[in-house]
Amino acid sequence: MARVLTPQAEDFPRWYQDVVAKAELAEPGPVRGSQVIRPVGYAIWERMVSEMDARIKAAGAENVAFPLLIPESYLRREAQHVEGFSPELAVVTYAGGKPLDEPVVIRPTSETIFGEYMAKWVQSYRDLPLLLNQWCNVLRWELRTRLFLRSAEFLWQEGHTAHATQDDARAYARKILHEAYEDFMVSVLAIPVTVGLKTVRERFAGATYTYTLEAMMRDGKALQMGTSHELGQNFARAFEMDYLSAEGRREYCWTTSWGSSTRMIGGLIMAHGDDNGLRLPPRLAPVQAWVMVVKDSEAVPAVAAKIRDALRDAGVRVGLDDRVDIQFGRRAVDAELRGYPVRIEVGPRDLKAGNVVLVRRFDGSKSPVPLGDAPAAVLAVLEADQRALYAEALARTEERTEDVKTLANAIEAAGVGFARIPWAKVGPAGEAKANEVSVTVRCLTRADGSVPDSEDEKGLVAYLARAY
Amino acid sequence: MARVLTPQAEDFPRWYQDVVAKAELAEPGPVRGSQVIRPVGYAIWERMVSEMDARIKAAGAENVAFPLLIPESYLRREAQHVEGFSPELAVVTYAGGKPLDEPVVIRPTSETIFGEYMAKWVQSYRDLPLLLNQWCNVLRWELRTRLFLRSAEFLWQEGHTAHATQDDARAYARKILHEAYEDFMVSVLAIPVTVGLKTVRERFAGATYTYTLEAMMRDGKALQMGTSHELGQNFARAFEMDYLSAEGRREYCWTTSWGSSTRMIGGLIMAHGDDNGLRLPPRLAPVQAWVMVVKDSEAVPAVAAKIRDALRDAGVRVGLDDRVDIQFGRRAVDAELRGYPVRIEVGPRDLKAGNVVLVRRFDGSKSPVPLGDAPAAVLAVLEADQRALYAEALARTEERTEDVKTLANAIEAAGVGFARIPWAKVGPAGEAKANEVSVTVRCLTRADGSVPDSEDEKGLVAYLARAY
Repeated sequence: MARVLTPQAEDFPRWYQDVVAKAELAEPGPVRGSQVIRPVGYAIWERMVSEMDARIKAAGAENVAFPLLIPESYLRREAQHVEGFSPELAVVTYAGGKPLDEPVVIRPTSETIFGEYMAKWVQSYRDLPLLLNQWCNVLRWELRTRLFLRSAEFLWQEGHTAHATQDDARAYARKILHEAYEDFMVSVLAIPVTVGLKTVRERFAGATYTYTLEAMMRDGKALQMGTSHELGQNFARAFEMDYLSAEGRREYCWTTSWGSSTRMIGGLIMAHGDDNGLRLPPRLAPVQAWVMVVKDSEAVPAVAAKIRDALRDAGVRVGLDDRVDIQFGRRAVDAELRGYPVRIEVGPRDLKAGNVVLVRRFDGSKSPVPLGDAPAAVLAVLEADQRALYAEALARTEERTEDVKTLANAIEAAGVGFARIPWAKVGPAGEAKANEVSVTVRCLTRADGSVPDSEDEKGLVAYLARAY
Repeated sequence: MARVLTPQAEDFPRWYQDVVAKAELAEPGPVRGSQVIRPVGYAIWERMVSEMDARIKAAGAENVAFPLLIPESYLRREAQHVEGFSPELAVVTYAGGKPLDEPVVIRPTSETIFGEYMAKWVQSYRDLPLLLNQWCNVLRWELRTRLFLRSAEFLWQEGHTAHATQDDARAYARKILHEAYEDFMVSVLAIPVTVGLKTVRERFAGATYTYTLEAMMRDGKALQMGTSHELGQNFARAFEMDYLSAEGRREYCWTTSWGSSTRMIGGLIMAHGDDNGLRLPPRLAPVQAWVMVVKDSEAVPAVAAKIRDALRDAGVRVGLDDRVDIQFGRRAVDAELRGYPVRIEVGPRDLKAGNVVLVRRFDGSKSPVPLGDAPAAVLAVLEADQRALYAEALARTEERTEDVKTLANAIEAAGVGFARIPWAKVGPAGEAKANEVSVTVRCLTRADGSVPDSEDEKGLVAYLARAY
């Protein structure tokens, strides 16, 4: 069989490009750094949105839609924020055939415009907490772009909340971190994540604390899968967001923001994909089972349609491939590329023996299954392979995470995976040094793996890696 | 009770503004013509998206995400299209701190960029039809804007399809028109629509035929609720979208596009709303039943929570209002404003008799219902009031649609509703004349109400009205 993808071991970035193109997930748009997400890729995003949205709503946030265009002056009100985002802004200067009086920017993120409106909506402590979220597009004029991983425009959700106290803001930023993001990544994407605190250097522009979820890709590099920020009272002061407390005092709110994006699609590809293409975790997969008519012979198409119906009735997301005018081999390669967790091949020979062939995308194993057992067998494999993908990714992450004691060793270990090292051995100076050779501190955790309150806590552990 | 809204009869546009503000649906954004859609408004949009998306998928289209920014040069390739949209474009001239070599525009609609990519994806007749759709934001720099009805940025879906033949393109444009749009508007929004063909003058810029769905608002004016276009081979020629036919010839595709937007929220408000606020059709309503604790007395809160649970178990979208620190009267006014179809008021007096009070938003009627019967009673009212809202809107539309024989009479009738007149009595000259006094031809239908193939058919009927 002709080689479809560059093998991962030969050239991982090239393999990634190949998968994105050949599985028809996305392609570059006409304007630099933009992307066209095709049906196969968008169906994955729809499943992500559906699972994440349910968790965000369960955490009490309500969806809204704020405008795309933000007055430039809004961004200037928070000094660190404008400094962080200025270099990446796209600016509209003409509209309706005329130059604009005040230039407006396309949102790179929406803390400022949410700040402006939340300040109006929050008057009293009774209005708090105010928990908002939006699904939208944002744009950051990045220098180097890569489909899904770093595109100028991307799709994401951004949550913005206001609270009466710092404790409440912190609790909510962490609730989203664990109950929405971590739970989704672990239980649906089957991707283990290291959850921790960003260092001052890696903080979001305008935040007092940034929490992050870091995943190891199959090349040993880290991908930041999502972040949740405590913004302290920075934006509340900049936008005069205050409230009348129960004691009758005017107090500034404490705010948070948190986001996750189409970048997770890149993470999904690189955490699970192999030399034959995507491997989608069953709970996420838009198509969990793919029933294939091997050839158009006697009862084959009718039986395949019946199996499709039986699987659908069993609650499986199922598709039917009866395109017998296309070579079976080519269709099977496509099915592998797209990462359908289970294939059911219905062919005349097996059918004579009352069987169909069940193929697991996880390990490529094939086994004959009696016709009537197909739904039960598929359900069992979906369950098993969700766990198997997670276990495999976890084993790899653990195997390629090295405990080291010196910065030099950490930088070396970051060549193949994560380095775990006491933060006291690195510190801001060591961090700057590591950055010079493209190694970054991905996050800080406590020794027991829990998330610290500040980087000044004693005994913290730092994770260093190369990153996307 | 203090007047919450300007009465419709006094000042309909003011009433509209009042409802949008007081029901907390949306408010103006900082940049001219932009809007902030708040949780109550966005929940309505989410329900619309969910219902429409299911119908669009059932019609075979797949979702994608194309870029926000389009090179200016793309728009120039189709002469009528660029002429139609040029005055409304917002142009990005700076990005990443530098002037751009080629200015890019924020999409006002995406025919051109879809054309560019579909031309690459379509090679052979086997690739057709290609049926795509996207949910996204678009921007048109409008001079006069009104929340939901005409905003610079709005949310919508836009479908783009390519077909081998004109017949197939036409059949699909009409399939969406009837099976997605009309079915949704009639059976979910409970809004009767007149479905017909636009005149040449009212056509979409670049289309060969535009189909439309027109609804009458409670002030007698028309609102265009959605459109579906045959684009002929105009865009296919402009973007070299051709295919190899089964006979081995290269042929240009026939394309369609179709869209519906957050404007439908404006239509929903104005088709059903009354002097007390929104009236949401039960099938659409994000909250179908609103259980209210009248006051915190003995078993009341516990019973209310139990009813909420029972309704949820019965498949009703339900909310619980137990904010007893806010006056009951104020909460009841809010519930009316937001248009929850059914309220269940749980108070100590009725509870003593084993009852709760069921209030129908449709007509404001109140009736005691034995506790155990609440779920069945709510389901019955939801079913009945979905029909009742449609029947009421239909009766009004019919009553305010006048059959006339002269253009002068049509213009007069358009002062209070729709005028129905033989198209032969109007024609392009009469249409231009009507336009001078802000009356437009909303659409053309056959005498039996069906959608004509062209405006040259004999015996067509024109609908004239003032419009939003």
